[in-house]
Amino acid sequence: MTSIGIFGAAGRMGRAIAQAATEAGLTVAGGTDRDGSGELAPGVAITNDPLALAQAADVLIDFSVPAALAANLDACIAANTPILIGTTGLEGEHHALIDQAATRIPVLQTGNTSLGVNLLAALVEKAAASLGDDWDIEIVEMHHRHKVDAPSGTALLLGEAAAKGRGIALAEHSERGRDGITGARAKGAIGFAALRGGSVAGDHQVILATEGERIELGHRAENRTIFARGAIKGASWLAGQPVGRYDMKGVLGL
Amino acid sequence: MTSIGIFGAAGRMGRAIAQAATEAGLTVAGGTDRDGSGELAPGVAITNDPLALAQAADVLIDFSVPAALAANLDACIAANTPILIGTTGLEGEHHALIDQAATRIPVLQTGNTSLGVNLLAALVEKAAASLGDDWDIEIVEMHHRHKVDAPSGTALLLGEAAAKGRGIALAEHSERGRDGITGARAKGAIGFAALRGGSVAGDHQVILATEGERIELGHRAENRTIFARGAIKGASWLAGQPVGRYDMKGVLGL
Amino acid sequence: MTSIGIFGAAGRMGRAIAQAATEAGLTVAGGTDRDGSGELAPGVAITNDPLALAQAADVLIDFSVPAALAANLDACIAANTPILIGTTGLEGEHHALIDQAATRIPVLQTGNTSLGVNLLAALVEKAAASLGDDWDIEIVEMHHRHKVDAPSGTALLLGEAAAKGRGIALAEHSERGRDGITGARAKGAIGFAALRGGSVAGDHQVILATEGERIELGHRAENRTIFARGAIKGASWLAGQPVGRYDMKGVLGL
Amino acid sequence: MTSIGIFGAAGRMGRAIAQAATEAGLTVAGGTDRDGSGELAPGVAITNDPLALAQAADVLIDFSVPAALAANLDACIAANTPILIGTTGLEGEHHALIDQAATRIPVLQTGNTSLGVNLLAALVEKAAASLGDDWDIEIVEMHHRHKVDAPSGTALLLGEAAAKGRGIALAEHSERGRDGITGARAKGAIGFAALRGGSVAGDHQVILATEGERIELGHRAENRTIFARGAIKGASWLAGQPVGRYDMKGVLGL
Repeated sequence: MTSIGIFGAAGRMGRAIAQAATEAGLTVAGGTDRDGSGELAPGVAITNDPLALAQAADVLIDFSVPAALAANLDACIAANTPILIGTTGLEGEHHALIDQAATRIPVLQTGNTSLGVNLLAALVEKAAASLGDDWDIEIVEMHHRHKVDAPSGTALLLGEAAAKGRGIALAEHSERGRDGITGARAKGAIGFAALRGGSVAGDHQVILATEGERIELGHRAENRTIFARGAIKGASWLAGQPVGRYDMKGVLGL
Repeated sequence: MTSIGIFGAAGRMGRAIAQAATEAGLTVAGGTDRDGSGELAPGVAITNDPLALAQAADVLIDFSVPAALAANLDACIAANTPILIGTTGLEGEHHALIDQAATRIPVLQTGNTSLGVNLLAALVEKAAASLGDDWDIEIVEMHHRHKVDAPSGTALLLGEAAAKGRGIALAEHSERGRDGITGARAKGAIGFAALRGGSVAGDHQVILATEGERIELGHRAENRTIFARGAIKGASWLAGQPVGRYDMKGVLGL
Repeated sequence: MTSIGIFGAAGRMGRAIAQAATEAGLTVAGGTDRDGSGELAPGVAITNDPLALAQAADVLIDFSVPAALAANLDACIAANTPILIGTTGLEGEHHALIDQAATRIPVLQTGNTSLGVNLLAALVEKAAASLGDDWDIEIVEMHHRHKVDAPSGTALLLGEAAAKGRGIALAEHSERGRDGITGARAKGAIGFAALRGGSVAGDHQVILATEGERIELGHRAENRTIFARGAIKGASWLAGQPVGRYDMKGVLGL
Repeated sequence: MTSIGIFGAAGRMGRAIAQAATEAGLTVAGGTDRDGSGELAPGVAITNDPLALAQAADVLIDFSVPAALAANLDACIAANTPILIGTTGLEGEHHALIDQAATRIPVLQTGNTSLGVNLLAALVEKAAASLGDDWDIEIVEMHHRHKVDAPSGTALLLGEAAAKGRGIALAEHSERGRDGITGARAKGAIGFAALRGGSVAGDHQVILATEGERIELGHRAENRTIFARGAIKGASWLAGQPVGRYDMKGVLGL
């Protein structure tokens, strides 16, 4: 039975991962956090010793902070344990560290651990690659009323997938925030629209529309536990992989 | 059998109305247009004599231009014939003329002859009136790639219905063109988003979202013939009404 | 501050109501259940004394079992306290008891405490009443994979609303479970379709379709807490009403 | 400029193809039909001589009847001209004839010439192959009120794509026409539901739902001209292919 260790265990995501691991029938080896105190679950301590955790676990999941990444990677390398990194806000220097680590151990890094979102991105890329630019691409998302930015990171991820499929640069072909006299739609543009309201965890839809027909490719998240469950699926898969750097596409066999 | 006369008969809408009238089993009495030549249908002439047409028809439908309104109303008053006005771009002066005419004959004026859109607006008003402002209101529409403005006139009509139901002024509570760091959604705001692509005749959806649940009220137009059909339904209804000014709500019994 | 008492407090729904009451800033007076032991919240006991609870609370919410209804109503009448009844499985005899009680105290009985679903039903009734039977009515719902019956109770509630609006009997006009050679759609029919999968809490959509256009009226429940929140809204409203029998329409001002 | 010949030219589809060819800037070489009389367009005759047409055209499109297939293929082989076959109702014997012809000339045979539907089927297959059977698959479609069978052929085509992706036989895993006490959803089932109403040309949606999230993959046809346009795209592509048998996936580069 795979044993999971959690870096950044005291946060909301850390606890969600511990619960998802238990529900999936895995063991939680323990967790670390800055304070290094408290329990992740009854009898499962939170420490501030990444090396001990990396030695105790079969695979690590890191949802801590970018500043903790170097020490966490060092611990995993020393213990020869794979690590899934879902920490957000990574910069170029962090990706360089990940590349280095991935020459020694299996490392999966992703900005979104949802299986559904990652699969959707792959389908969008394929659709955009198959259809000509007489198919207009629009991306619309809805999130809860507290979200402060638009479009969502996932909408941009889907836009990047569409742009990659079509072989264009997203930044040069985005139409965002349409309002007023916009003129006709630019050929080849990728449009974004953002809806906000209630407690929506995250709905995304990519529409490809041409004369007379439309393809609609969407994802609905009912709540945020899907990210914890996706991390557990990713970590279980990663535990059986050879040394190298991966993303969630591998988990989906893409 | 009701006999329909068409002001502005030579345009795309005029011909669509003639066809819809025939499909509905009504008679087309004739049409007028600036040039006053050609045929509306085999054996049905287009003239430039509104009075003769108003005398020949049981009810008139006007989809011409604002500049022709005064003469068309005069003809209908002289002939004592009801008139449905779907002409767009009307100003305050035109509405004053309509108000005057409506003291002499039945007049129905509307910016949108679709039964479905008008019913949707009534439902949106009722929903907004029933729910508190802990329900966020969002309006999203999709139209073909050639549309040059956003949001659509129908989206604004739906926004006005929502604002009326809630007892607020739309202009002071609109959130349009969200993009970038927007901050959290303003309480009581009515949001608009516009999608463009393909040949979509017009899809509209009003979302009311609160903690844990959403109501979605939408309309899909497959093509533009619904506006002609709605005009025919409206004119048939108007032919049986007493003197006064009406809109499409009357046709729906609202 | 309104004080809520809960009949049937030990069940999942009872606890959800206690939490929703606290979140809404109300006081929880206490609860009853068959066993009459345990706590509903820290310091809030569960007893088996409905009269004491009815005397302590400003309004009661009953999500217990039909067999407990008579005693619960007697307690509320004796204490002169309003009661909202969300218990399911009520028979004719229970409704007779409710009618009697409603001559002495305010009573709200409903099969669904969601504000959104109740509003949707009112909108569907209005739409069906406004449109002729050249508009076909279809109802499609999606629920989680564990649901054992189809269509859902809420889909049938929406179907009843549509039938009432149209002035027909639902039982005589339902088309359910279409499969194989069905023949063309019967004029005036109300169709039902059921989707099952994942953990969907409950999505419902009523489609009214005619030549060239469609109206789509839907509701999405993200989770089941909306029923507890709706019960709290209903109880708060009921506390200010005169003697009589009510349903959720009153809460919505319909 | 590619020149298109049309077998089965006198029918609704034949005329739609001629119009789509002209709109796409192609030449219409002519058409055949049983009667062999009339015009396909001004100056373009309909004959009953397939060989002459096959010699005059760069590529043939056949939307006639199965009984005419052998003669049409013979003509194309004799003239060494590629042929796209969209005729429905083909039996095993017809597919054997197509296989033989495809050793001599390029032949594309398909049950659905819409690019969007064919791409959607490919995406559904990929999604089903990537996700485990803890993702439930549901297929819902809506068509006009005159359709006499359910589910639609396209819904079954999408179901076959899902079954292929998952490596199961559709016939053994279909859940159709849910109604009444159905019991919980069978693990691994593919569900079908059919909506009927108005004049809907054809909407399809494949939902993949698991705990906490859903992927929705859909297609909307605004009208039936997309099938003619798809046939033209397919024929233009086929004109440049080597000898062999193809389907619409080739046109999409899949």
